[in-house]
Amino acid sequence: MIKLRAAGNKGLGRMTIPKEMTAIGFDAPGAADVLRPETTAVPSPGVNEVLIKVSHAGVNRPDVIQRQGFYPPPPGASPIPGLEVSGTIVALGEGVGRDVNGQIVCALVTGGGYAEYCLADIRHCLPVPAGMDMAAAAAIPETLFTVWHNVFERGWATEGETLLVHGGTSGIGTMATMLGKAFGLKVITTCGSDKKCAESLKVGADYSINYKTADFVEEVARITGKAGVEIVLDMVSGDYVPRNLSALAPDGRHVTIAVLGGLNATLNMAQIMQKRLTLTGSTLRPRPAEFKALLADEIHNNAWPLFADGTLQPVMDRIFPLAEAAAAHARMEAGDHIGKIVLQA
Amino acid sequence: MIKLRAAGNKGLGRMTIPKEMTAIGFDAPGAADVLRPETTAVPSPGVNEVLIKVSHAGVNRPDVIQRQGFYPPPPGASPIPGLEVSGTIVALGEGVGRDVNGQIVCALVTGGGYAEYCLADIRHCLPVPAGMDMAAAAAIPETLFTVWHNVFERGWATEGETLLVHGGTSGIGTMATMLGKAFGLKVITTCGSDKKCAESLKVGADYSINYKTADFVEEVARITGKAGVEIVLDMVSGDYVPRNLSALAPDGRHVTIAVLGGLNATLNMAQIMQKRLTLTGSTLRPRPAEFKALLADEIHNNAWPLFADGTLQPVMDRIFPLAEAAAAHARMEAGDHIGKIVLQA
Repeated sequence: MIKLRAAGNKGLGRMTIPKEMTAIGFDAPGAADVLRPETTAVPSPGVNEVLIKVSHAGVNRPDVIQRQGFYPPPPGASPIPGLEVSGTIVALGEGVGRDVNGQIVCALVTGGGYAEYCLADIRHCLPVPAGMDMAAAAAIPETLFTVWHNVFERGWATEGETLLVHGGTSGIGTMATMLGKAFGLKVITTCGSDKKCAESLKVGADYSINYKTADFVEEVARITGKAGVEIVLDMVSGDYVPRNLSALAPDGRHVTIAVLGGLNATLNMAQIMQKRLTLTGSTLRPRPAEFKALLADEIHNNAWPLFADGTLQPVMDRIFPLAEAAAAHARMEAGDHIGKIVLQA
Repeated sequence: MIKLRAAGNKGLGRMTIPKEMTAIGFDAPGAADVLRPETTAVPSPGVNEVLIKVSHAGVNRPDVIQRQGFYPPPPGASPIPGLEVSGTIVALGEGVGRDVNGQIVCALVTGGGYAEYCLADIRHCLPVPAGMDMAAAAAIPETLFTVWHNVFERGWATEGETLLVHGGTSGIGTMATMLGKAFGLKVITTCGSDKKCAESLKVGADYSINYKTADFVEEVARITGKAGVEIVLDMVSGDYVPRNLSALAPDGRHVTIAVLGGLNATLNMAQIMQKRLTLTGSTLRPRPAEFKALLADEIHNNAWPLFADGTLQPVMDRIFPLAEAAAAHARMEAGDHIGKIVLQA
């Protein structure tokens, strides 16, 4: 990790870390309003871990599914929601070099982001450069890691190819659009209203299809001159999958990262053979720390410079105080947001 | 192509090629008995092509599906069935070096194998070494090219991994078993009777599951200590696909090469994400000649030496005279064969 910005090392070095903090919890799964602030112990960093005094925490769809009771934290992860934070490193676990103390970072975390303090694996932290807004920094890691791995590594996206992204104005959708464009892809998105389509074009999409007023398979055929797209980043799944396969070009790749439209898909396997399609997908949270460390390295070298120098900036929807996490979830579930929703600790 | 065996170059050089030959045709799609010998013109080799005086022709499942009317020849291919032959090169098209005249080869062809003479792309021919039976030579190309590409290239099979093959005693099944074992895989097959399971074990399978008396998903879990298999070579498709996915280990690959059990499969897309599975597949016949040439090169360098020196030998079922192609198809459709069915021209 490159040290880019330190927040008063001297002061922080002597900063007293409280025993307790405010975090967001819930007693039982349910609607957004089950989320409430609670007082809990500040965690202690273990091997390779740092404690981050949280500035902001990103809100992601998996947090909502966790709150609904359908996505339990993996073994060893905090039960507190929140998969990404920005903030200042204030305590170090075993194996972490002393020079990172006081650094300002954003991090992909396995949970615990909706809190005043959060643990992170030092290898999953990215330095926040001077000039980057801390709310924006917290809005990057989860979607950046997810899109990078799934579009470029699992999906083998290559310059000149066309990427179809559903949910063009979602956090994932906006990140996929800007990263795709930055790395030479043509990007087609789908959105649920003309207003969202217009926003998606502003983010950089070459085409944006209103799926409520047009059939995206027909539109993709028209836009690509019947060639189809090389990659679909699928977060809808369900009955979108056979339609996605019809929209794919020969040798196309279909990468599933969420199943918001339903688990089950009925596919024509002969189509997979005849077009030599590849279907795959992944979840990020349960992967081993070592895998995420390699991914963070690759992102730090290849994509992070574009965020660090301001070429790319996450699309921000709204910032809620940490205590209003319930309202933040309600906003995500209403589906009217454009870009990322963030909590301020 | 390496010159290994010449069949009397002097004589062949002056051999008269007849204008007409016997080949197998059919007027309309239907049951096996629509196949009948007919007299047709001997074809002339085009650029990069050779004319082979056919010794034997392999019978493959796609030939049956073509005869049934469900797998029309790709553009430019002969309407005569037959995807692989062995024989002697007797005429050369433009761009083919004169030194191959008279060579004894086997070849992957796009059609036309069920005949006394057949065209082949010179780049899709493999030399038949002294000592290799010509019936066996004709039984190799289609399954060798198919298994090599799908198991090792599309399926990324790697030494130490476990391959599940359905139809263990079919031509594909026996080839996948012997190639898998030769390249360091553990092989589990499924077959429809205890007799076939015993035959599959003789071919080299580590385990063979009688799918009529046991649930293959449970058996795979038992055999692998619940770890699952890394690769499934799927020629059944349909409702086998979700069961195959359950039998796969995390990061497992599912490669479909036929859909004998039905086109449509209903999959749990969350399972694909959570286990990071990859589903793909391919058909060989419509691929460009250049692709097959590259594949032939790779096979010639890596797998062919094992056949050339007798380490591997195709499992042979029965040889029928060319004129009895209908009986050969009836035998394949009855499903009692073990290994390859071949026609003698």
